[in-house]
Amino acid sequence: MKISGRNKLEATVKEIVKGEVMAKVVMDHKGTELVAAITIDSVEDLNLAIGDKVTALVKATEMMVIK
Amino acid sequence: MKISGRNKLEATVKEIVKGEVMAKVVMDHKGTELVAAITIDSVEDLNLAIGDKVTALVKATEMMVIK
Amino acid sequence: MKISGRNKLEATVKEIVKGEVMAKVVMDHKGTELVAAITIDSVEDLNLAIGDKVTALVKATEMMVIK
Amino acid sequence: MKISGRNKLEATVKEIVKGEVMAKVVMDHKGTELVAAITIDSVEDLNLAIGDKVTALVKATEMMVIK
Amino acid sequence: MKISGRNKLEATVKEIVKGEVMAKVVMDHKGTELVAAITIDSVEDLNLAIGDKVTALVKATEMMVIK
Amino acid sequence: MKISGRNKLEATVKEIVKGEVMAKVVMDHKGTELVAAITIDSVEDLNLAIGDKVTALVKATEMMVIK
Repeated sequence: MKISGRNKLEATVKEIVKGEVMAKVVMDHKGTELVAAITIDSVEDLNLAIGDKVTALVKATEMMVIK
Repeated sequence: MKISGRNKLEATVKEIVKGEVMAKVVMDHKGTELVAAITIDSVEDLNLAIGDKVTALVKATEMMVIK
Repeated sequence: MKISGRNKLEATVKEIVKGEVMAKVVMDHKGTELVAAITIDSVEDLNLAIGDKVTALVKATEMMVIK
Repeated sequence: MKISGRNKLEATVKEIVKGEVMAKVVMDHKGTELVAAITIDSVEDLNLAIGDKVTALVKATEMMVIK
Repeated sequence: MKISGRNKLEATVKEIVKGEVMAKVVMDHKGTELVAAITIDSVEDLNLAIGDKVTALVKATEMMVIK
Repeated sequence: MKISGRNKLEATVKEIVKGEVMAKVVMDHKGTELVAAITIDSVEDLNLAIGDKVTALVKATEMMVIK
């Protein structure tokens, strides 16, 4: 199975904060902190927990460049 | 100046492909390839070139998690 | 492997138009036409072709509602 | 009135969960579950309720393909 | 008909550049330039032309803040 | 420092509502109301407050057109 999304960053889950609809998932990728705002349904569906090895996925059209 | 976008990845520009409207900017971030699809206007406005040190920016709501 | 993105629509590829950077992938989902704008790199990486059975993926934060 | 967003899925609202800022709107589209994360302001502005006939809207650049 | 997307900016089309898949639509909103990257299919479907009075639409989850 | 995101709207912060994960930031741009849904972490990192002069940032690929 392959996904068209071009950016795949291997990461480790460091922190999960659940609101009523959205959750914040903080990850570590080679020393850089990543933050994903996903639904709490997704957190439960993936059974996400601190220490999990995951992949952060970002579509190329969603990435900007700062110089 | 600070930006609300939570994900900031330091990267080096490796390749730029320009279409008529959109451009593909391939970057290297600590050995991981990143791909941003931005307008060619942005490439010109930032004067992007191979070897440039840049920051890839992604809003937290645009990042998914795969497990 | 599970993806946090909540919307997964089974579809069949009907048409692929490649530009220099972006490609248009037209799909059929139960009689409804879907259109994804992805990079041509993704089209090649997935080896997408007319008739392929695929899944269209959309993050919940990217879906709007019209009433 | 026409909208540039290419993906329009007719759906029926099945569930609405309101947080303090964001709301989850679960819809049924021909037997497939759709989930939109929109602001609670939008839910109120559209006066969304269970059973409403709505259209889920997704921009082509926000749709990925899995194969 | 109401759309959940919260940001609606009245604008006038100033320039349209068509690639093979994507188009750039430059608009003027009260003296501020807006740029939308949409599919050429959308440009044709809306029959967009220079001088058209349009509304630029942005979902709240797609807007960042710089300070 | 330049950002590839094409749409930059000068605005004044009018209201901030914080949930547990996401925050709503309402802004005024030349008489038009703007609404951004960002993480509460961003609100705190930028130290956002009512009356702040800010810039709303939107990537061109995230802007739709209604006609």
